[in-house]
Amino acid sequence: MSVHFRKLALIGIGLIGSSIALAARRQGLVDVISIATRRHDTLEEARSLGLGDIYTLDASEAVRDADLVILCAPVGAYGALAEAIGPALAKGAILSDVGSVKEHVLKVVGPHVPEGVEFIPGHPLAGTEHSGPSAGFAELFAGRWCVLTPGPEISPSQTERLAAFWRAMGSDVECMDAAHHDMVLAITSHVPHLIAYNIVGTVADLEADTKSEVIKFSASGFRDFTRIAASDPVMWRDVFLTNRDAVLEMLGRFNEDLSRLQRAVRTGDGPALEALFTRTRTIRRSIINAGQETAAADFGRPHD
Amino acid sequence: MSVHFRKLALIGIGLIGSSIALAARRQGLVDVISIATRRHDTLEEARSLGLGDIYTLDASEAVRDADLVILCAPVGAYGALAEAIGPALAKGAILSDVGSVKEHVLKVVGPHVPEGVEFIPGHPLAGTEHSGPSAGFAELFAGRWCVLTPGPEISPSQTERLAAFWRAMGSDVECMDAAHHDMVLAITSHVPHLIAYNIVGTVADLEADTKSEVIKFSASGFRDFTRIAASDPVMWRDVFLTNRDAVLEMLGRFNEDLSRLQRAVRTGDGPALEALFTRTRTIRRSIINAGQETAAADFGRPHD
Ligand SMILES: NC(=O)c1ccc[n+]([C@@H]2O[C@H](COP(=O)([O-])OP(=O)(O)OC[C@H]3O[C@@H](n4cnc5c(N)ncnc54)[C@H](OP(=O)(O)O)[C@@H]3O)[C@@H](O)[C@H]2O)c1
Ligand SMILES: NC(=O)c1ccc[n+]([C@@H]2O[C@H](COP(=O)([O-])OP(=O)(O)OC[C@H]3O[C@@H](n4cnc5c(N)ncnc54)[C@H](OP(=O)(O)O)[C@@H]3O)[C@@H](O)[C@H]2O)c1
Repeated sequence: MSVHFRKLALIGIGLIGSSIALAARRQGLVDVISIATRRHDTLEEARSLGLGDIYTLDASEAVRDADLVILCAPVGAYGALAEAIGPALAKGAILSDVGSVKEHVLKVVGPHVPEGVEFIPGHPLAGTEHSGPSAGFAELFAGRWCVLTPGPEISPSQTERLAAFWRAMGSDVECMDAAHHDMVLAITSHVPHLIAYNIVGTVADLEADTKSEVIKFSASGFRDFTRIAASDPVMWRDVFLTNRDAVLEMLGRFNEDLSRLQRAVRTGDGPALEALFTRTRTIRRSIINAGQETAAADFGRPHD
Repeated sequence: MSVHFRKLALIGIGLIGSSIALAARRQGLVDVISIATRRHDTLEEARSLGLGDIYTLDASEAVRDADLVILCAPVGAYGALAEAIGPALAKGAILSDVGSVKEHVLKVVGPHVPEGVEFIPGHPLAGTEHSGPSAGFAELFAGRWCVLTPGPEISPSQTERLAAFWRAMGSDVECMDAAHHDMVLAITSHVPHLIAYNIVGTVADLEADTKSEVIKFSASGFRDFTRIAASDPVMWRDVFLTNRDAVLEMLGRFNEDLSRLQRAVRTGDGPALEALFTRTRTIRRSIINAGQETAAADFGRPHD
């Protein structure tokens, strides 16, 4: 099904917002792109990159007459943004977002959605460690999942229009319940990020000498953690503030397992260590088979 | 300084051993390469890959007349191997290794080193998640560190010969004390691997449904951990059995920090979360500046 929107409004124009602008334009999915953001400098950067057609610091101005509005700011800003744009949303419009948590978003945005507007939360499982308008690229969503979490009141045809928009940008779309999304993402994304931030934090606390050696020799494992621990601090703060229960539940399991592993190291239990280290290989094989990763050594980093 | 050895004996011919064979040959650093390993099949695989000139299942046979001998087996096998080859080592030879821990290696190999042989432990900080003779490639060591931990009794000229050998294969060489090596590596490599193994293990314990969803959506963070948790189980078992104290010390700090972070999530302490997530970015910048990592998004993985 070919999909088309007259006017797309992007509220927030960082990595994700700018990637949507570039991909939607390249695929010819929209006539007009209207961009709102909080800071003047960011707006000017977006303008100089030619990301849209209309630029404004007033989100309610940006959404006027838009038939597709996507919130692309950190989740913590959603409540105030929804309150601001609610009255200006056009009848028949689809309101969506890209936030990394979904139950909280339903809760804070939902009450501000006027009659005649369909709110369909979304989350593209795509990103890099960079942020801001210049970090975006049109291929970001290609071959990556986009999860939509429409409530039961949403008309299937509207969900299908939004799904077609994401598919046209290269994504595979999956619909699920918001609570289920938050649980699965706590495991695949939120807890891994928390752990990466934690170990990088532990290193940041070392004395200066040791720290500079750790940086020097980081290629032996540590550096892989620093990539995901370099993601945007505000975005991740908001994720942990808004998906607390699922994160704490998974973190509890992680901690239990780590205590057991620590005990195996302390008591020198070779068979237990080897058994665990063998089981974990299967998971990677499944991920490669699922087409979610390259089998090339070292992420396919160049070795020259 | 140009470096040359008449006969190089490699004891163990997995990822590291085969990479040394290929790199030493390509750079013309040796006349003859003699290869020993434990299993018949591995030896035949090495032969069919043309990695050496002499192939044997008898390590003491392999080292005869060699002026450079490098142990390339898991560290847990070193004691028995050293005992077997000790009497056959040629006077004037350099004995070295590539094991990921160094104090333990001094302890178990040292006693078997005969008069007239210089034992200079080594550790190339280079590797991938693959193993076996076919995993090796000549460029593995290029631009990577190799740490040597010669004792005070070793003549500087012999250490320099070994250092020149590694430099000729593309490595940067650094000498340090064995205990210091083990502490730094516990942080940069051993604890990161333990944590990655642990989180992948936590996922492996999930119910089948959830697990398959985690695999499907793994690109949002989790998959990066599975790469280092796919490394050779026996090698890693031996690392944790032989570098216990440094690993437990670092793991203790990691756990303390994680408790604090968990508490910040539980109490919804946004400023504390944001502050930590901001501090960790600096470390990655330092690693990129130190030439140990690419600044390209997503490890430079292809986005098409
Ligand atoms: N990065 C990822 O890997 C990733 C992946 C999937 C989903 N997401 C989700 O995508 C959303 C945006 O992330 P991003 O990576 O694109 O972030 P980003 O690059 O940091 O950009 C954030 C954008 O939101 C704006 N913004 C920040 N605070 C605001 C506020 N209080 N009111 C209005 N606008 C505000 C920023 O504008 P100013 O510069 O003008 O303040 C900027 O344009 C987040 O909800 C995140 O959860 C991110
Ligand atoms: N992989 C890395 O990333 C990395 C990085 C730096 C240093 N290292 C160190 O390099 C060493 C080898 O690692 P690797 O990655 O090359 O491992 P690998 O690919 O699994 O190869 C191990 C080799 O050792 C042999 N071996 C295993 N057990 C043995 C025993 N009991 N007696 C004699 N030979 C035995 C194996 O032979 P069979 O098949 O015949 O059993 C095989 O040839 C380890 O000490 C490790 O700590 C590894």
